[in-house]
Amino acid sequence: MITIDNRPIGVFDSGLGGLTAVRRLMEVLPNEDLIYLGDTGRVPYGGKSRETIIKYARQDISFLLRHGVKLVVIACGTVSTNALDVIRDEYDVPVIGVLDAAVVSAVKTTKNKRIGLIGTEASIRSGTYERLIRRLMPDAAVFSKACPLFVPLVENGRTTVGDVVIETVAEEYLAPIRKEGVDTLILGCTHYPLLGSILAKTMGGGVRLISPGAETAVSVAASITREGLTTARTEPGSYSYYVTDRADGFERLASRFLETDIKGTVEQVDLESL
Amino acid sequence: MITIDNRPIGVFDSGLGGLTAVRRLMEVLPNEDLIYLGDTGRVPYGGKSRETIIKYARQDISFLLRHGVKLVVIACGTVSTNALDVIRDEYDVPVIGVLDAAVVSAVKTTKNKRIGLIGTEASIRSGTYERLIRRLMPDAAVFSKACPLFVPLVENGRTTVGDVVIETVAEEYLAPIRKEGVDTLILGCTHYPLLGSILAKTMGGGVRLISPGAETAVSVAASITREGLTTARTEPGSYSYYVTDRADGFERLASRFLETDIKGTVEQVDLESL
Repeated sequence: MITIDNRPIGVFDSGLGGLTAVRRLMEVLPNEDLIYLGDTGRVPYGGKSRETIIKYARQDISFLLRHGVKLVVIACGTVSTNALDVIRDEYDVPVIGVLDAAVVSAVKTTKNKRIGLIGTEASIRSGTYERLIRRLMPDAAVFSKACPLFVPLVENGRTTVGDVVIETVAEEYLAPIRKEGVDTLILGCTHYPLLGSILAKTMGGGVRLISPGAETAVSVAASITREGLTTARTEPGSYSYYVTDRADGFERLASRFLETDIKGTVEQVDLESL
Repeated sequence: MITIDNRPIGVFDSGLGGLTAVRRLMEVLPNEDLIYLGDTGRVPYGGKSRETIIKYARQDISFLLRHGVKLVVIACGTVSTNALDVIRDEYDVPVIGVLDAAVVSAVKTTKNKRIGLIGTEASIRSGTYERLIRRLMPDAAVFSKACPLFVPLVENGRTTVGDVVIETVAEEYLAPIRKEGVDTLILGCTHYPLLGSILAKTMGGGVRLISPGAETAVSVAASITREGLTTARTEPGSYSYYVTDRADGFERLASRFLETDIKGTVEQVDLESL
């Protein structure tokens, strides 16, 4: 039986980090329509409590469902680690976080079974990544570190090699993990791939960086193909972007990040009544 | 005629920065009851748009009014610069920002009429401080600089001398102002006095730091005394704290900052329906 489903895929994050998943989804599922929501009016999520993260996640998902999405990608490490287990079964469509694909990839990648993990305060505090890694590789040694300043630094565009601020912060956060001799580092927040060059430089050659957003995009493609949820269209998909603060600041940063001009396609919305 | 008014004074900020005003209010008005609101569920405000800041400010004030305050202190530079002119006349009680008292103090303090100004993106973008300074001192030279990473750094407790991250960021932000030979620096965001030692060290001796929260507390005391709004009570005032994210993290940081244990007196509330 072949089924088709022309509804869009919904993706959300607290800010622009989730675009790391969107960019990869555009590559692996070029004909799918995508709806992106960035909760820029309340970014960042990573220092907030579990209860607040769950509340915001429900509002984000409600918004996407009102736009008729067939699947929701939580392109946010903080929500995936803190809210997914609670809210997963509340919806009629699949809700997919960024953890599983990243953990599978990390476990496949590591040779010495020493895995580094970085994320927001809330993500690291949850212990969710460690539990998933140990389920797949019980003898793995996991070295984790909360990096609370990375999201503000990324959202302020402090991502370039040679910027002494980001390099100083990165060295402080990563040195303890580097010293443990990990060969794999999970970037447990979808903002972090924007720091790819910095993180690679700080960790040194030979350490593989795992991007949960990109890994998840690939696994979403496999999943919807398997379950007959792919679109029947053969033309390129269309993309819509929604944010909860002004569109212009997001348009500028997101255009640079997606390497395509999205000016005029971003709309500001209000989630708080959802 | 002597009038009395036993209602509490309301104070709000996006996070814990507004406590710089509270601490001073406790000193100058020891018998007044105070209600503090920190919108920790949506902190920081400083990178958000004017429209979003105005919306959040209205919700913050509505919350305080429902607690029967006789006066609202906007202990937040971002709200004072972006929202106060729009919302000032919407309420039956006085709504006081942190700008006027700070500007008066800066103009009195400067000898060489060269004034530095630091604040959030939104505050500096508004140009509000510069306009007020020029109104009082038309020949003042004002050198301003947005410091978008200061609030995340303060909220992460990165405030101590010797912390290379905050010292590096402070040097980057302040060097251009220092080079202009200012003798007075307005800390245009109520979080910044928590960086007092760092800022003093970076600016060098001889530069006076103006704290808008503290200056405003003094001016509020003068104002309610003049207008017969002071309490009749002679015992110490009572203090209530409300936040929009979990109470425990705020309690810890706020207790350290106020140098008094406020554990058990902080309550989490929901503003979004207001």
